[in-house]
Amino acid sequence: MKIVILGGVAAGAKAAAKARRLLPDAEIDLYTDDTHVSYSACGLPYYIQGNFTDYKTLLVRSPEEFEKQNIHIHLRSRAIKILPEANQVLIQDLSENRAYLAEYDRLVIATGARPVMPPIDNINLKNVFTVRRIEDGIKIREKALISRHATIIGSGYIGMELLEAFVELGLKVTVVEFAPYILPVFDNDISKLIQQQLTGIADGRFEILTSELVTELFSNDTGEVTGFKTGSGKEFKTDMVVICTGVKPNIEFATEAGIAIGETGAIKVNKHMLTNIWNIYACGDCAEKTLLIDGSKVWIPLGSTANKEGRAAAVNLAGGDEDFEGVLGSAVVRCLSLTMSMTGYTEKKASQAGFQPVSVSVTKYDRVGYMPDVNNITLKLIADKTTGLLLGGQAIGAGDADKRINALTGALIGRLTVEEFTKNDLTYAPPFSPTIDPLLNAAQLLLEKIRKD
Amino acid sequence: MKIVILGGVAAGAKAAAKARRLLPDAEIDLYTDDTHVSYSACGLPYYIQGNFTDYKTLLVRSPEEFEKQNIHIHLRSRAIKILPEANQVLIQDLSENRAYLAEYDRLVIATGARPVMPPIDNINLKNVFTVRRIEDGIKIREKALISRHATIIGSGYIGMELLEAFVELGLKVTVVEFAPYILPVFDNDISKLIQQQLTGIADGRFEILTSELVTELFSNDTGEVTGFKTGSGKEFKTDMVVICTGVKPNIEFATEAGIAIGETGAIKVNKHMLTNIWNIYACGDCAEKTLLIDGSKVWIPLGSTANKEGRAAAVNLAGGDEDFEGVLGSAVVRCLSLTMSMTGYTEKKASQAGFQPVSVSVTKYDRVGYMPDVNNITLKLIADKTTGLLLGGQAIGAGDADKRINALTGALIGRLTVEEFTKNDLTYAPPFSPTIDPLLNAAQLLLEKIRKD
Repeated sequence: MKIVILGGVAAGAKAAAKARRLLPDAEIDLYTDDTHVSYSACGLPYYIQGNFTDYKTLLVRSPEEFEKQNIHIHLRSRAIKILPEANQVLIQDLSENRAYLAEYDRLVIATGARPVMPPIDNINLKNVFTVRRIEDGIKIREKALISRHATIIGSGYIGMELLEAFVELGLKVTVVEFAPYILPVFDNDISKLIQQQLTGIADGRFEILTSELVTELFSNDTGEVTGFKTGSGKEFKTDMVVICTGVKPNIEFATEAGIAIGETGAIKVNKHMLTNIWNIYACGDCAEKTLLIDGSKVWIPLGSTANKEGRAAAVNLAGGDEDFEGVLGSAVVRCLSLTMSMTGYTEKKASQAGFQPVSVSVTKYDRVGYMPDVNNITLKLIADKTTGLLLGGQAIGAGDADKRINALTGALIGRLTVEEFTKNDLTYAPPFSPTIDPLLNAAQLLLEKIRKD
Repeated sequence: MKIVILGGVAAGAKAAAKARRLLPDAEIDLYTDDTHVSYSACGLPYYIQGNFTDYKTLLVRSPEEFEKQNIHIHLRSRAIKILPEANQVLIQDLSENRAYLAEYDRLVIATGARPVMPPIDNINLKNVFTVRRIEDGIKIREKALISRHATIIGSGYIGMELLEAFVELGLKVTVVEFAPYILPVFDNDISKLIQQQLTGIADGRFEILTSELVTELFSNDTGEVTGFKTGSGKEFKTDMVVICTGVKPNIEFATEAGIAIGETGAIKVNKHMLTNIWNIYACGDCAEKTLLIDGSKVWIPLGSTANKEGRAAAVNLAGGDEDFEGVLGSAVVRCLSLTMSMTGYTEKKASQAGFQPVSVSVTKYDRVGYMPDVNNITLKLIADKTTGLLLGGQAIGAGDADKRINALTGALIGRLTVEEFTKNDLTYAPPFSPTIDPLLNAAQLLLEKIRKD
């Protein structure tokens, strides 16, 4: 059997490795337009920050290891056209600039996503970066080490991680966010609190501009960025700019081949990660996902999901039967001393999906008040008013705010109501939580709120 | 309405406060043989350790605050007989050594548990302590500050917390445990690992003796403990001894009054925390509990449960309807850099309960390997072979091992199978977990094990 895999960061690399274990005799070829394969893209902010200095630390498996397993890695090789009737992919070799056809029995599309470039004048200047690949990380770190000021456009997960990285490197940082508050993937009330808390620890090291966009970049004679102008007409100086305004799935060449695209704009797949074409699978950031809560379609590109999908695709193309049911959109991000985490529906998304969301937020100690290092955490819990079904949660605070979110996910996949969840028995000891965990406080209050109205 | 509450640490104090909110006009009297009321007994090891120096920090509510709410606190007042037909309790005033009768319409028994004293010769020497009340904590800290060596008999949760406290105070410590491994509440394989890991960080500061018991204490002329002898005949010197060999419920006076005792030896209650007598409730460490997994009866005395039960008792005696469904036995304990946590059934208990337990243990990084402060955690996951139902888990390691246990509890109350749990979507970012969380690795392996046999 000839297996061709397109893309090799998380989903593609995982699919290749798993397929090899299941099909010792298959021919496996992995094509990627990247210069590296099988790496932790999520680790780039920590490489930039200097938590480790050799970028090779990010590599999960080297091309040599793949070769040992008889998996052929073709770097700088871009898939430009799929010919489903012929079971062929047209590959462009970017090094030699020639094209050739690769034959497959099973095809796995794991081409990921790419940064969305906002409409900014002069965006192609030197020292204007996106963060996607290892080279991006290397260039950003090199430039950051000799810079005094960095600008981050967009304040999603990666923007927040880069803010931490630059601050830890001693740069002054300006974050520019178009939405009214940073991290707009959270509900507004929580985003507002995140912004207040981050601003509270800024101490002159960084500033956050919201409801603001960058319209133009300025440069010097050698084409290096030197500053920017905002929509409100203000001008700022900077030594480097990183665009973190989100990503979109790499699906254009799939569309052309007749592969169906879902309502979210990513490749439509079933639970086997199979597309509408019988021998073509898709997984990772280019594929659409199913929300476990209600089966609705979402596009939440995250590394943890990509790994699971790559695995499932490999099992199924090898003749196995492994359903990948979907995601909750669980995520966590650290920025300096602040942790922000969420799972399931936000209140705004729940409304859009037709639920009648009701929510509570509590701010409580994360452990017993007399313990050293006690901190506040704020928890928001969301449920459907009609059914009492738990829909999601958001947690922010110093320390392990994500602990409470992970305590919710099992309840979400079990489709528990708030009332059922109030029966939960969480661990307690003074260094770890208050006697009644904030999560249970929140659940109790939410239950009372649902019953009252 | 006259409400009498017996006992006032966690369950009793919570019941009093909640009853007051629900019944503004009720007469509420709380009798306790203790000299303090409403305090965090779980905080005693941290007071001893010196995390705070004023023991009053442990008080949740002072007697004055209770009086302000018109809740009458009677300290050093022991209930010695309940007269259910007359709705009276005979109270002994320990200060004045006289007795009197208290009348009630509703009675709440929250008399807690007391230490089990092992059969050791000369156990009543000076500087031999148990840890239950605030005075115990004060005396232990006073003595620890002028001691060089402490002995802890028993290695349950409190024994482990005291080990940390004494080591942090600079004492040399000997722990003596009768079981083959410490923390015998965990499965043997995990207890063995805990012991290895603790021994690995002992660095001459403490030693752990297992399969060993203390048979005799030695003293000097003034009756102070100076050493002990073990069952194997060895002799040791020590300056102080703390007995941590477990507790038993304070139920004798309830038995005499015809209040039914459950199969576990604690007071039998229904979901309303009601005993077999229509106007007598029991809650906290003196009451039997229901295991949420299968409805079996257990006696797991923990502070977090006591608070919830006290609340439920108050709601129901006030005419409300609040079921306390039960517990999972979720617990966490820290000892120095090691965290140990569990929920639900251990493998041994699951066998005793008639399940066909199957388990896996994995040892994995707690975050991505390239992050600073990465540590190993070991996770054991237990399920029933026949049904695939998740039964419990145990986690040990540096840092927040309890995070993974709390991620299990929602699944346990939702009665998820291992297969359902493998669909869980936990948060991921490099500072918080590996791409695939160890909990999901373990669940996947457990699923394969269940399917294979």
